[in-house]
Amino acid sequence: MHDIGIYGLGVMGENLALRAHDVGLSVAVFNRTKDKAFALAARVGSPRFQAFADPASLVASLRRPRLLLLMVTAGPATDAAFEAVLPFLEEGDVLVDGGNAHYEDTLRREARAREARVAYIGMGISGGELGARTGPALMPGGDAEAYARIAPRLEALAARLPDGRPAVALVGKGAAGHYVKMVHNGIEYVFLQLLAEAYDALRNVYGYTSVELADAFARANQGPWESYLIGLVREILTVPDPETSQPLVEQILDVAEGKGTGLWTAEEALRLGTGGSTFGAAVHARNLSRERDLRLACAEACGEPWRRPEAVLAYETWRDALHAAVLVAYAEGFALLRRAPETYDFAVDLANVARVWQSGAIVRIRLLADLERHLRQTPEIPHPLLFPEIWQLVREREGALRNFAAWAVRTGLPAPAHLAALADLDGLRRRRLPANLIQAARDAFGAHTYRRIDREGNFHTSWPDPEGREIPRPQG
Amino acid sequence: MHDIGIYGLGVMGENLALRAHDVGLSVAVFNRTKDKAFALAARVGSPRFQAFADPASLVASLRRPRLLLLMVTAGPATDAAFEAVLPFLEEGDVLVDGGNAHYEDTLRREARAREARVAYIGMGISGGELGARTGPALMPGGDAEAYARIAPRLEALAARLPDGRPAVALVGKGAAGHYVKMVHNGIEYVFLQLLAEAYDALRNVYGYTSVELADAFARANQGPWESYLIGLVREILTVPDPETSQPLVEQILDVAEGKGTGLWTAEEALRLGTGGSTFGAAVHARNLSRERDLRLACAEACGEPWRRPEAVLAYETWRDALHAAVLVAYAEGFALLRRAPETYDFAVDLANVARVWQSGAIVRIRLLADLERHLRQTPEIPHPLLFPEIWQLVREREGALRNFAAWAVRTGLPAPAHLAALADLDGLRRRRLPANLIQAARDAFGAHTYRRIDREGNFHTSWPDPEGREIPRPQG
Repeated sequence: MHDIGIYGLGVMGENLALRAHDVGLSVAVFNRTKDKAFALAARVGSPRFQAFADPASLVASLRRPRLLLLMVTAGPATDAAFEAVLPFLEEGDVLVDGGNAHYEDTLRREARAREARVAYIGMGISGGELGARTGPALMPGGDAEAYARIAPRLEALAARLPDGRPAVALVGKGAAGHYVKMVHNGIEYVFLQLLAEAYDALRNVYGYTSVELADAFARANQGPWESYLIGLVREILTVPDPETSQPLVEQILDVAEGKGTGLWTAEEALRLGTGGSTFGAAVHARNLSRERDLRLACAEACGEPWRRPEAVLAYETWRDALHAAVLVAYAEGFALLRRAPETYDFAVDLANVARVWQSGAIVRIRLLADLERHLRQTPEIPHPLLFPEIWQLVREREGALRNFAAWAVRTGLPAPAHLAALADLDGLRRRRLPANLIQAARDAFGAHTYRRIDREGNFHTSWPDPEGREIPRPQG
Repeated sequence: MHDIGIYGLGVMGENLALRAHDVGLSVAVFNRTKDKAFALAARVGSPRFQAFADPASLVASLRRPRLLLLMVTAGPATDAAFEAVLPFLEEGDVLVDGGNAHYEDTLRREARAREARVAYIGMGISGGELGARTGPALMPGGDAEAYARIAPRLEALAARLPDGRPAVALVGKGAAGHYVKMVHNGIEYVFLQLLAEAYDALRNVYGYTSVELADAFARANQGPWESYLIGLVREILTVPDPETSQPLVEQILDVAEGKGTGLWTAEEALRLGTGGSTFGAAVHARNLSRERDLRLACAEACGEPWRRPEAVLAYETWRDALHAAVLVAYAEGFALLRRAPETYDFAVDLANVARVWQSGAIVRIRLLADLERHLRQTPEIPHPLLFPEIWQLVREREGALRNFAAWAVRTGLPAPAHLAALADLDGLRRRRLPANLIQAARDAFGAHTYRRIDREGNFHTSWPDPEGREIPRPQG
């Protein structure tokens, strides 16, 4: 009898299956294209790694309570796999969806599984191909008792934190796992966009060489910002193109694709209203990269915004601006996760999220250890930027972010994610915003009423019309 | 027999019914709370204005081809009204939904109506209470033959352009009418946010008095930017609070509400990817205004971002920055409308939109007359900013927008909509964006592949891992 079943052997499924075997689990695999599963099992050549030709025998091969992990593309393919295995699962079994499902689909499937008395766990998985193979971050969401039945197996599979804890913990009920993965990817989008803007400044305005570029990112990869993504960018900058001997990154077309989770996060931030405009800035930047023909036409007709800057900023200003904006992006991610239970029927365990993301995850970064501590010690604090030690990190770099943003604006360097981070920081600390003018206008043209600063109630005023029109009085 | 039936007598329905009577149409009205309909008819006291107690007699009272206008709240109320009248309508009749329906709901209802051989037109209506009463802008979308049957009646109802044309024209098939209204409201959100940011600068940094504020907006309300909303803000600034004798606007709570259409537009811009980040900036700003408790807590703990500016900018810089950003918002609205048919099955007649919005609509502004001319003369131009005369208007003000944005960033004045407009302007004209770095990173951790600048194809590289991890080679 096998410890874990894996349904779907794409890049992530295959590597997770191999990882499970590596850590001593006994693995049963199934793939819609059956040859792939049998070829993989033959390659592994172990009694603890067996392929099956149909969902029924896959399920039957698992020890109870069964752990069956779906690793198929989100959407219709997940529905098909779900329906294919559900009839064979029994009470006490746990079905885990490890794809990037939208949380609304997960809620729907969880309800379907509950009817069949099967526990359903939507689980975010992060780490990419290499993470899946050497230890991913796992973000399971669902019923706590069901999770307890499979926790030891998932803990064996997951990456380890420096303190030895596994990078897996229940992050909440319902669709919390997929919701958390969505926000993880949203942060990843913003982080990458900030790195791209920082690279743009050094490469195209400062005129750094490849060696200087790699060195700049290596030196920025320190302290609370020591992270997989900054480290990865440093590595990328060192890779030459074998054909041209130029840096390979410069041979890559400037068209950024995406799989949709960043878009979902941006939509959630708009809907839930916690002020996270960095997510949308990152999505818009990728969108604009794909409008290459339009950009070339505009550059031709209107001229590039480019101009020589008045002065190049100090390296430290560039670095501190990047660090401040990265911190804002993480804070906005956690603020969004904190808001989710007010809107949906699942609460997110923020401290567990900060724990799980510390290792294996693409967004792993040293500052998550501090964040986890603060979230456990003072969970009542309503926004991550209000943790005094976190705010101190921002405060020391706020001036640099301001200087970098103003410089980018004057230079004509598009830095939408840096600008959004700063605008959010400034708006969030404003006692009074000019929204009173908007409410006055809404009351003037739509009779939507307004509230006052000095007393309760909803008020309406007959504001003068700029064109002098009036509602005709009824005759008689 | 009556010319037009109006189902629903809220603020908009009642005023449209009175407007219809004013312009000589014979009007039949129905309201769920029946007393309201009969009281209104009694107040009007005209044989051309009659109330009915049920949907059947309302429909029966109309001349054929019937024009029945639903004026109920979007969502379930519209579904209820739709189902209440549909059984009584006959082939050739035209059912018009004048609410702010989501375009997806309109597509669904249109299909339902088609089964019953009834023409269904989703129609955006703009102008607020006073516009409904004195002449609104109407944005009908749907079948051209059905529209032709009711066009003379709608033309009588609509506002007039300075050249005498009515502010109504078919803007497209399917759900185009409601889609256009959605974008109209998105532009309205951005315009109001830009005005609020401009007001914030003058009021709270420049220290303008109420008289100076009103004068500043009056002087900005000129040329292509002569508009309802700038004029309205000027009027609002002149109204004193009868109780405190202070400007009334300053007694209004800085919490901006909304009805959702701005959010929909922001979501569409994210999804369709035309680079319109101003919509999201405006929605986020309203969201943040509603986070008042959080803002007060952050201001208390972290201090307001406020600082005295190095220097106050010239009035002309402030004004030109506002004008440039407003132009970008309209351009982004039309760019979004242009993209819609690529995604949905309705095309939008952009020139007709520019026509209809010139009078009656909340977003009416002089520059729409120029835009309509360009859209008719050179419809093949892919983005409004590429019309040479439009670009000229931006080009002359781009420096001011850049100076204002940099000044706001340095001053700690949150100006998210100005910043978004500038970032979009700069990104749109960039031949090469730094998205190549994002694609390299995505290929490194997710094997998502990349394209090259020098030849076709999708490529994958084994990038070095920053942590030195490697995929273990299979044994044997």
